[in-house]
Amino acid sequence: MEWHNVLDPASPELDQLAERYKLHPLHIEDCRHRDQRAKIEDAPGYLFTVLKPVHINQEGDFVAVDMDVFLGADFLITVEETECPEVGGLISRVKKAMAAEARPDRIYYRIMDELVDSYLPLLDKLNDTIDELEDKALGSPTPEVLQAIFSNKRTLIFLRGVLVNTRDLVSHLQRLNCQWINSDLAPYFRDVYDHVARNLDMVEIMRDLLAGCLDVYLSSVANRTNQVMKVLTVLGTIALPALVISGFYGMNVKGLPGAESAYGVGIAVASMAIVTGFLLWMLKRFGWL
Amino acid sequence: MEWHNVLDPASPELDQLAERYKLHPLHIEDCRHRDQRAKIEDAPGYLFTVLKPVHINQEGDFVAVDMDVFLGADFLITVEETECPEVGGLISRVKKAMAAEARPDRIYYRIMDELVDSYLPLLDKLNDTIDELEDKALGSPTPEVLQAIFSNKRTLIFLRGVLVNTRDLVSHLQRLNCQWINSDLAPYFRDVYDHVARNLDMVEIMRDLLAGCLDVYLSSVANRTNQVMKVLTVLGTIALPALVISGFYGMNVKGLPGAESAYGVGIAVASMAIVTGFLLWMLKRFGWL
Amino acid sequence: MEWHNVLDPASPELDQLAERYKLHPLHIEDCRHRDQRAKIEDAPGYLFTVLKPVHINQEGDFVAVDMDVFLGADFLITVEETECPEVGGLISRVKKAMAAEARPDRIYYRIMDELVDSYLPLLDKLNDTIDELEDKALGSPTPEVLQAIFSNKRTLIFLRGVLVNTRDLVSHLQRLNCQWINSDLAPYFRDVYDHVARNLDMVEIMRDLLAGCLDVYLSSVANRTNQVMKVLTVLGTIALPALVISGFYGMNVKGLPGAESAYGVGIAVASMAIVTGFLLWMLKRFGWL
Amino acid sequence: MEWHNVLDPASPELDQLAERYKLHPLHIEDCRHRDQRAKIEDAPGYLFTVLKPVHINQEGDFVAVDMDVFLGADFLITVEETECPEVGGLISRVKKAMAAEARPDRIYYRIMDELVDSYLPLLDKLNDTIDELEDKALGSPTPEVLQAIFSNKRTLIFLRGVLVNTRDLVSHLQRLNCQWINSDLAPYFRDVYDHVARNLDMVEIMRDLLAGCLDVYLSSVANRTNQVMKVLTVLGTIALPALVISGFYGMNVKGLPGAESAYGVGIAVASMAIVTGFLLWMLKRFGWL
Amino acid sequence: MEWHNVLDPASPELDQLAERYKLHPLHIEDCRHRDQRAKIEDAPGYLFTVLKPVHINQEGDFVAVDMDVFLGADFLITVEETECPEVGGLISRVKKAMAAEARPDRIYYRIMDELVDSYLPLLDKLNDTIDELEDKALGSPTPEVLQAIFSNKRTLIFLRGVLVNTRDLVSHLQRLNCQWINSDLAPYFRDVYDHVARNLDMVEIMRDLLAGCLDVYLSSVANRTNQVMKVLTVLGTIALPALVISGFYGMNVKGLPGAESAYGVGIAVASMAIVTGFLLWMLKRFGWL
Repeated sequence: MEWHNVLDPASPELDQLAERYKLHPLHIEDCRHRDQRAKIEDAPGYLFTVLKPVHINQEGDFVAVDMDVFLGADFLITVEETECPEVGGLISRVKKAMAAEARPDRIYYRIMDELVDSYLPLLDKLNDTIDELEDKALGSPTPEVLQAIFSNKRTLIFLRGVLVNTRDLVSHLQRLNCQWINSDLAPYFRDVYDHVARNLDMVEIMRDLLAGCLDVYLSSVANRTNQVMKVLTVLGTIALPALVISGFYGMNVKGLPGAESAYGVGIAVASMAIVTGFLLWMLKRFGWL
Repeated sequence: MEWHNVLDPASPELDQLAERYKLHPLHIEDCRHRDQRAKIEDAPGYLFTVLKPVHINQEGDFVAVDMDVFLGADFLITVEETECPEVGGLISRVKKAMAAEARPDRIYYRIMDELVDSYLPLLDKLNDTIDELEDKALGSPTPEVLQAIFSNKRTLIFLRGVLVNTRDLVSHLQRLNCQWINSDLAPYFRDVYDHVARNLDMVEIMRDLLAGCLDVYLSSVANRTNQVMKVLTVLGTIALPALVISGFYGMNVKGLPGAESAYGVGIAVASMAIVTGFLLWMLKRFGWL
Repeated sequence: MEWHNVLDPASPELDQLAERYKLHPLHIEDCRHRDQRAKIEDAPGYLFTVLKPVHINQEGDFVAVDMDVFLGADFLITVEETECPEVGGLISRVKKAMAAEARPDRIYYRIMDELVDSYLPLLDKLNDTIDELEDKALGSPTPEVLQAIFSNKRTLIFLRGVLVNTRDLVSHLQRLNCQWINSDLAPYFRDVYDHVARNLDMVEIMRDLLAGCLDVYLSSVANRTNQVMKVLTVLGTIALPALVISGFYGMNVKGLPGAESAYGVGIAVASMAIVTGFLLWMLKRFGWL
Repeated sequence: MEWHNVLDPASPELDQLAERYKLHPLHIEDCRHRDQRAKIEDAPGYLFTVLKPVHINQEGDFVAVDMDVFLGADFLITVEETECPEVGGLISRVKKAMAAEARPDRIYYRIMDELVDSYLPLLDKLNDTIDELEDKALGSPTPEVLQAIFSNKRTLIFLRGVLVNTRDLVSHLQRLNCQWINSDLAPYFRDVYDHVARNLDMVEIMRDLLAGCLDVYLSSVANRTNQVMKVLTVLGTIALPALVISGFYGMNVKGLPGAESAYGVGIAVASMAIVTGFLLWMLKRFGWL
Repeated sequence: MEWHNVLDPASPELDQLAERYKLHPLHIEDCRHRDQRAKIEDAPGYLFTVLKPVHINQEGDFVAVDMDVFLGADFLITVEETECPEVGGLISRVKKAMAAEARPDRIYYRIMDELVDSYLPLLDKLNDTIDELEDKALGSPTPEVLQAIFSNKRTLIFLRGVLVNTRDLVSHLQRLNCQWINSDLAPYFRDVYDHVARNLDMVEIMRDLLAGCLDVYLSSVANRTNQVMKVLTVLGTIALPALVISGFYGMNVKGLPGAESAYGVGIAVASMAIVTGFLLWMLKRFGWL
């Protein structure tokens, strides 16, 4: 059994392997043109798989890279993407664990298993972020929260794309009855399928929760506007009678009731208090307070 | 017929049973790594099932635990989750009812039936909560109601996940034609399927109703804002003419009409009343009142 | 041919019939435990059907009851729900129309046909209610309209559940090739299927229209808030210049322009009119009026 | 080949034809009870089709009528709906074009083709209406626009129902391998299917655009409220300092700063201008202007 | 091998080719009546394909044209749309690359491949536009942004229609086992399918993001309204006490407290400051600031 790990898809090493194992030119092209979808293709003599490891880059964004695997009867070729340390880490972990392994299909399963498990910490991280966002949307609905909701939405849309394709890949693999994979591995691949399906469930649930965050955000803003309006109304209710009555007694006309009496101020203040009190009682009665 | 009930999945008892009945290592691993999805797997010599009993924990949250069942020709192994009294209760109820039973498939059916029935009181409880929330969202749309709507949404998303997997499990079981289950039990498993499907219907309806609660909430808030605005407008309509006219008569200028006459106050008050009345009549006419 | 109509599912009559015709205990249990889903089950010797007649109860709510039918080669057993006059009415109508009928499958078809037709007046009633609600949501969006929208939504969710199950039942019946139903009835059952499907179409359309009602409601409220705001703005626009200028001339300071002249009032009023006119012209120009 | 065109489904002519060609009583009933769904049914000896021509009635509403077609080996029966001139027009157009045609299946195809083409001008008309509505929703979001959006939504829901059933009808026809239709017509019916599918695409796109119209409407209203609020705020910002300061100098107290000086008015006006300017600068700085 | 490229579908050249290669009249009609859906049809002797190249016209709108391809055992006929330079460009690119090619199926594949690749720059352009719109919706939610969101929505609906049909076309082609296409091209057509599917994924993601833009827009407007309201409230809070108190001391009544003292102004200003401070502290305490 030979395992060739090509570190740079542009290297002539890949061309030599392609010639030796009769790899289809389209598959070599797929290795060299990045940004493929996760997919599996059954070619004469081997099985071609494009996997999509995901990592978080320096800007904090989720990014998918390509990792290509050719599985034959007695060989395994893995093609790394040059600039990505994650794929290298995954492959070296598998290499260490599988040092004595003689069957390429077992290594193939192990790569798949490691890949699918590598999605889980990313999903957990996202889940925590969404929990925080929900609290913030309820407590302090600022434009920053809105922006965070939408950047997480983008991430979920992106992850969902990767996971749906990976699930279809594993499901296709199970139906394929590929001759290069021994049937004793069937329950193991079913297990991988289970894990991808659970990951996808989590993404769907998070999409649902994030949509809820936006609803919370909008509801919170509406609620706050409503409360601000009420403050304004109460302020107006308290101030307007005072303004009207003091305006009334401020007129330069004759015959203002009680203006000449010694209790002028008392009369004015009393009428202000009565009218304001009446208005507040009205607001209370109609449930606006 | 032997029924082994393993109380602790980590105990060596499970390893001995695995050796004796040739249980697949992946299934033993599933028993020990919790948080599996409900699933059924047909292995040589036995049928492996992961069930998900749900209970309400001390914080009032809905929590699912794992319960694993191995069904063979003449044996039944159930694996409890250590920290969960609910699974223990379920198993002891089945044990009591099935004391004299000699067929493992009948006990297997009974466990399934008890499990599915155990979801019903939880769903009824949720339904009551949602009814209350709808009333509150209409009557007093506070942020607490919003928070309650979203925590119930989370619960429903969670329950839906458990029930969808359980339904797929039972549906898979019906198509499986498993040799360890006698065909006379077919109508009974169809009955279990019916119950899960009905539970799932209830969850879908509750999701729909909860989405409605949020709409009621938003509509109520919008309506209240609208009413507060109207109060402000009416207050303004009543106060502004009075303010403008008293301001007018408060000016230190000459020639204020009627200011020198003895009916000064009368003239001022009359013009205030006329303008306010006219504005209120306008508001009424355009349907803003 | 014998037609047994059991008036009370709890009566021993049902047990005797069960023994005589070898009815499955699960089906007898289904007759006695109400709130089943509409379903059809092919048992050895007979066909078991649960139908769901719907009626409006005294509180004006839509309520579904159970009606069970056992169809065999030469017998028909119908089980009424004790407290429901509607099922009784349906059965007596069929009895009258089918007095001389000797084939149980024809009576079975007739019951199905009557049941499906009985949904139509209920749907028409709902349709009228929704039409009214749309008008009200546009004309006077009060909280009562909101409440009515949501109670009708509940009714539609409920009816949809009943009709979907009934449609699946009839569709299942068509695929079943049941030996107790003569093939000459096939076009008649296709006709029943057509009617259920049309009913379901109506429910879906009504759901769509009711969702539209809520949108109309929210849009109406938003529109009204907007109009109230405009009234406030116009009021403010008219009053503020007057207030500012009269306040200006009300100051106890020296040198107020024109305050000493005989045209003081004229100057003040003219400046108020000019500023107010200018503001109104601005509002008009920017399309805020 | 005989083509019978029945003008009135209630006429005894239809009964005679039913007897002569052994038409199924359920199909005759379908001809006489209007408001059927578009459907196709394969009966012994003939093929029964219900088509749904759509026209615009005097109130401007889209209305569907029924048109029934029986196709046999050597006969064609079309049943018009009495009160509808459109069906008559369609049939006379086909009659003219097919005067010398001897094969009933060709005429049947022609009727189908004419029917499907008759939907197109209606769809184009709707499309224009929706374009206008989008402009209006953006430019002047009045309640009339809202009402128009919802009446067009109703029309689309209705048309979609008709077209979905017609598409299923044609698709069913293609799979049927009906003996009364020669296989050389297969590409022609595929063409009809293509046209219905394109019509349905248009309806779906229009539904999507109309949903967008409502969003535009709500967004426009929200935007206008926001702008009205800003006008109010700016007005308040300009007026309040003037009011506060003129109120200050209007107090009948001693020691008003500068009140006794000759520059009293200048001092007051200057402080008003400074405070108002400062507030406007603040608003501008925080982006509220 | 002959490749006929018809520049004008109305030219008699097409009629001659139709006669020579026995092309079906419906397909010739399809070439001449534009605005077909992308589709593939297997006719005796050849394969008929309608492709839909998309370009941006002078108004900046996305427009699809028709391009028809007839593929036979030893001939290829391509029909351009007269007024469109893009189709001409595509064909001349293929002609140059395939100058020495003797197999029509290879040229057919190349045309397909070029077509599908030609969608990519358009999608990238749209993606950039949507990114910009999201930023604008958050930063400055003007009606222009709203209009841009909806015109991009129209474009996406349109592109989705074209791509869905193209994907179905390629998928149909793969299942067809067409005799005019050698099986060694199968992986190449699978590759084309992959590209269309990826394009469609992009469109779906963009639809999702654009829906998000509208949510951002509405949320931003609501947020701004909320902030404007707060400014108004704070302004009112600062001004109202001053107005009320200066109004109070402006009354022409006797006994105003402190009005006669030398500290009159001090007393008035101090009470204004105290009340305003208290209100601001209240607002702060209830989290309204």
